[in-house]
Amino acid sequence: MPKKTEAKIKGLVHLNGKIMPLHKAMIPVMDHGFLYGDSVYDTFRTFSGYPLQLSAHIDRLFHSAKKLQLKSPATKKEIMAQIFRTLSAYWKRFKKEDVYIRVILSRGYGNIGFDLNLCTHPTLIVIIKEIPTFPKKQYEKGISVAIVPTLRNNPKSLDPNIKSGNYLNNLLAYLDAKKQNTQDAVMQNYKGEITEATTSNIFIVKKGTLYTPSLESGLLKGLIRTLLIDIAHKNHLKLIEKKITKQELLHADECFLCGSIKCILPVTSCNHKKIGSGKPGPITQKLMRLFPTAVMECIREEYCLDS
Amino acid sequence: MPKKTEAKIKGLVHLNGKIMPLHKAMIPVMDHGFLYGDSVYDTFRTFSGYPLQLSAHIDRLFHSAKKLQLKSPATKKEIMAQIFRTLSAYWKRFKKEDVYIRVILSRGYGNIGFDLNLCTHPTLIVIIKEIPTFPKKQYEKGISVAIVPTLRNNPKSLDPNIKSGNYLNNLLAYLDAKKQNTQDAVMQNYKGEITEATTSNIFIVKKGTLYTPSLESGLLKGLIRTLLIDIAHKNHLKLIEKKITKQELLHADECFLCGSIKCILPVTSCNHKKIGSGKPGPITQKLMRLFPTAVMECIREEYCLDS
Repeated sequence: MPKKTEAKIKGLVHLNGKIMPLHKAMIPVMDHGFLYGDSVYDTFRTFSGYPLQLSAHIDRLFHSAKKLQLKSPATKKEIMAQIFRTLSAYWKRFKKEDVYIRVILSRGYGNIGFDLNLCTHPTLIVIIKEIPTFPKKQYEKGISVAIVPTLRNNPKSLDPNIKSGNYLNNLLAYLDAKKQNTQDAVMQNYKGEITEATTSNIFIVKKGTLYTPSLESGLLKGLIRTLLIDIAHKNHLKLIEKKITKQELLHADECFLCGSIKCILPVTSCNHKKIGSGKPGPITQKLMRLFPTAVMECIREEYCLDS
Repeated sequence: MPKKTEAKIKGLVHLNGKIMPLHKAMIPVMDHGFLYGDSVYDTFRTFSGYPLQLSAHIDRLFHSAKKLQLKSPATKKEIMAQIFRTLSAYWKRFKKEDVYIRVILSRGYGNIGFDLNLCTHPTLIVIIKEIPTFPKKQYEKGISVAIVPTLRNNPKSLDPNIKSGNYLNNLLAYLDAKKQNTQDAVMQNYKGEITEATTSNIFIVKKGTLYTPSLESGLLKGLIRTLLIDIAHKNHLKLIEKKITKQELLHADECFLCGSIKCILPVTSCNHKKIGSGKPGPITQKLMRLFPTAVMECIREEYCLDS
């Protein structure tokens, strides 16, 4: 439980077969998720009450888990059922339709050491809480980023496609960005290629063409990134996945970040230098307009709703 | 608490001002130490009841914390006092003089996000438990290692000198070693230089000279590594810190690992190829003989004991 002077975070948790208030959810100090960050997770939100890309997020959770030889105690179907049970309890209690969802699969309780047999019961946790609010102004005016000294993890050290409880690389990059008085960090790989922001993929626009770093640069294959590539193709916007250099980002006409929680967030300065006109550009704005319809199409398809 | 079918790990924990059994120590799911591995730690053992290099370990804990802008809720003196209180309770309860100690400083409870103001109360945890037993045979015959595909974290991504709760890089290397049917992994950096094993520093011997990877290769400046360099100098053993290649390791006459818990552990094969004669070599054995006396000298000095 949080200390008495700490604000209680509102939300619900599904843990060890029970649904409980978020601030009461506890795990053992000897959970390897705490000792080593030995856990995987995935995070997404609901739109009109429906978790977007739910099936793909759970698939990715299992993909991350497999890379760590971490076995889920529940099947995909069971995890989905846990999410919907917790959602239902959340709606009854908080009367809010749209929520933030985080599913964590931790190695579980066990003695110090790497032997996988030390931990016999991986722990599955579903967290449901309010969606963090990004100020409206950020979407209208765009945010500032810095290309930071902290390099994105080398996929041969810790693959960015394992969404894990090892998140210090991203935190260090964020702290770099704050030191430079900017709002988020853009990380390069050790070869100097642009990879992603601390919790988002990145796109740029140059002379009417969209570009996003190719997966070979070492970045998370974000599900909103995939959705945006699809939206671009369907709307005849030219899009190229390729290695992107620092200079290409600095001299882009437009730039934006995307992720499951923030959706599409324009970037209007990099390293304290305006990007394009210094305002969200026309292609960024077009994608922001197309996005809600595409989201609802995804949801209609995933949940077999009538259109 | 562990699930009913899980073995309870014996030990004591100092947490939130209380000493409690290790298996009952719990932290919130919303502790950033669990969500992001956003914690630092240091680990050491007692000899004849005295924590070896205690002051240096707490200094290193503070060094790791500073790199993450993580403020300790307790001073060095207070942390040491907590350790001795917990040690005293452990001795009363378990009647064992020599123990394993782990001090963890976690970011604490807070909502999802990187803003350091989200977590107002970092959590300090002292764990005291039995020393893990390394089979005597391993010290007599040596262990096998493999130079694995997983590369050590680049210091520009996450400095190995931050001892943190982000330990998946090491776990992945260990899993590589297991796949190759060896007992531990040796990790290279992205330039191919040898760095360290998963929880130890590494030394080799060639033609009577000791070599250990220089810190520039990107590795933890281990306190036993420092002690061994000191022992070598005092005993007129030639020792060089330098970049070490895979070929130099494979063609070494001797090799050993060292760490605060395992002390000096001979390595007698690498990549399924004998190192030297395939038995712990004479310089390794000499250091193993000198080690207990050096440890007791350190302790006499640190605790102002009469010799």
